[in-house]
Amino acid sequence: MEKKVVSAMEVAKLANVSQSTVSRVFTPGASVSEKTRKKVLKVAEELSYQPNALARGLITKKTNMIGLAMKDIQNPFYHEVLGVFTKKLREKGYSVLFVYSENEEIQQEEIKNFLEYNVEAIIVTDALLSSKLVAQLQQNQIPVTLFNRYDKNLKCHSVSCDNINASKDIASYIFEKGHRDIVFITGKVNTSTSRDRQKGFTDFFLKKGIKITVLEGDFTYEKSYHLTTEMIDSGHIPEAIFGANDITALGALDALKEKNISVPEKTIVIGFDDIKMSSWPSNGLSTWEQPIEKMVDETINLLTAEIESDNYQAIKLKGQFIHRKTTK
Amino acid sequence: MEKKVVSAMEVAKLANVSQSTVSRVFTPGASVSEKTRKKVLKVAEELSYQPNALARGLITKKTNMIGLAMKDIQNPFYHEVLGVFTKKLREKGYSVLFVYSENEEIQQEEIKNFLEYNVEAIIVTDALLSSKLVAQLQQNQIPVTLFNRYDKNLKCHSVSCDNINASKDIASYIFEKGHRDIVFITGKVNTSTSRDRQKGFTDFFLKKGIKITVLEGDFTYEKSYHLTTEMIDSGHIPEAIFGANDITALGALDALKEKNISVPEKTIVIGFDDIKMSSWPSNGLSTWEQPIEKMVDETINLLTAEIESDNYQAIKLKGQFIHRKTTK
Repeated sequence: MEKKVVSAMEVAKLANVSQSTVSRVFTPGASVSEKTRKKVLKVAEELSYQPNALARGLITKKTNMIGLAMKDIQNPFYHEVLGVFTKKLREKGYSVLFVYSENEEIQQEEIKNFLEYNVEAIIVTDALLSSKLVAQLQQNQIPVTLFNRYDKNLKCHSVSCDNINASKDIASYIFEKGHRDIVFITGKVNTSTSRDRQKGFTDFFLKKGIKITVLEGDFTYEKSYHLTTEMIDSGHIPEAIFGANDITALGALDALKEKNISVPEKTIVIGFDDIKMSSWPSNGLSTWEQPIEKMVDETINLLTAEIESDNYQAIKLKGQFIHRKTTK
Repeated sequence: MEKKVVSAMEVAKLANVSQSTVSRVFTPGASVSEKTRKKVLKVAEELSYQPNALARGLITKKTNMIGLAMKDIQNPFYHEVLGVFTKKLREKGYSVLFVYSENEEIQQEEIKNFLEYNVEAIIVTDALLSSKLVAQLQQNQIPVTLFNRYDKNLKCHSVSCDNINASKDIASYIFEKGHRDIVFITGKVNTSTSRDRQKGFTDFFLKKGIKITVLEGDFTYEKSYHLTTEMIDSGHIPEAIFGANDITALGALDALKEKNISVPEKTIVIGFDDIKMSSWPSNGLSTWEQPIEKMVDETINLLTAEIESDNYQAIKLKGQFIHRKTTK
């Protein structure tokens, strides 16, 4: 992707200083007066000039680096995603600059390096992005693609599973099996994945005149384990539990096992993702397989294709139901 | 860390061409005759010249990038390690260039980017490195530090847990509890972690005149699950099982549960790492906690300190036994 990069020369011209002065301002330890420093920084900010830590005097504008920002280090799904991205990007000649975001929403500070190293594009998996930050990245001509998430308020591409239809299919399966006492354990409610899975699932049952129980989880094993334990202790043993992701479903499954409630005879359990751990013999979790390889391919296609900047695509892929031993 | 970088000018001089010719040879799509290309590439190889994809005309030699190479995307221990490294390196102003190695031994091709982007140092976690590759990196003045691993044949620093003494402590605990029918499930036998854990453990029992059973695993849940199932099917139900890492121990634990062998009453199970999953209520795995934070701190200290190149340090940290419900 060709980028228009504001040069140090343009900054120098507007700040009425020499180019080497601009260079000194952005070189750690170099001598420059405080007054000049402030003047140059002000112009640099106005022009969205980023001191390129590596590429002063760069011949080519291609850096072949892609920034990847991720938050949930505890969910194995994202480790598999990281592995597939790293492998497939290398095949295309790209390197991965990795940022682990510690905050619910990615902070400016955390992606400063993405700008400094002039990455060609940014992939954001599970962390949230402000529209202000997206605008800033666009000003620097760095396209952002959301992975496994979408946000119609943000001006960027997204690639995710068709969560609404997948959850409808799961709901239909549960309904056909004759179950009527049904629980959905949400993920973080401010994410599109959790919202869409909840919507597809509950809407299906609402149309059938069935009101299901919704427990508010947070995509962690622990929260789901405790919610399920509390529910059982309160006397409610449902016929089916659908977790917003696999580790949520695994938390519910283990809570049921701990209380000696037989799965799938008494309660069936279904997750979403198909992480490796779900296939472990002791778990044997039935789940919806996200088509990670295809999702990554589509993301890389979006990043590398020449696409009009105001034509943002929201790609949704299907995936499939994987039956294991937690369903009948 | 100050690096001596061979410049395009030096290559041009020796190849008897202009500097812009050298530049064209390393610019994709630029025009240059096949004869000249070969001549320049030959000299470049002799001088260990790396076309720096980003930093042609670089003012400062500092890139603030650290290369991190990792292999085992399935073991949650390394995800936690990746999270801690990324966080702590950012605090020091470094970015992480991430490489996921698909091969048992890291290939030249996989770390080509580390050289091209002129990373300041490389951290290798669980993948193997050839001494040839280490020598090549050193020639480029890029120090390598092994994390959670050491190899006395390689000229590089290493930071790991004191696996021999930790395993001796675990053996001592098992012995004191009166158990005599003991199983150790190895990890990959060509790794220092598996070898040292086996050595500390078996040596302790040998001195007591006790020969333990060693099953050859590979650090995966699946292998350990199958080995344990086979062992039980053959009629051998040991009093204690020590797995070379947590997911090995979890595979054994689940196999015991599947066969209705009560843990810890009939058989106790102990792992190594203390990954998050080991603390999940359904697992409650007793294990040896690796001091990840301290290990990462020590690694970053080694990377950032000015250390004489022939003074390679092998730092070993202690960690501690975490008692949960798989031991009495």
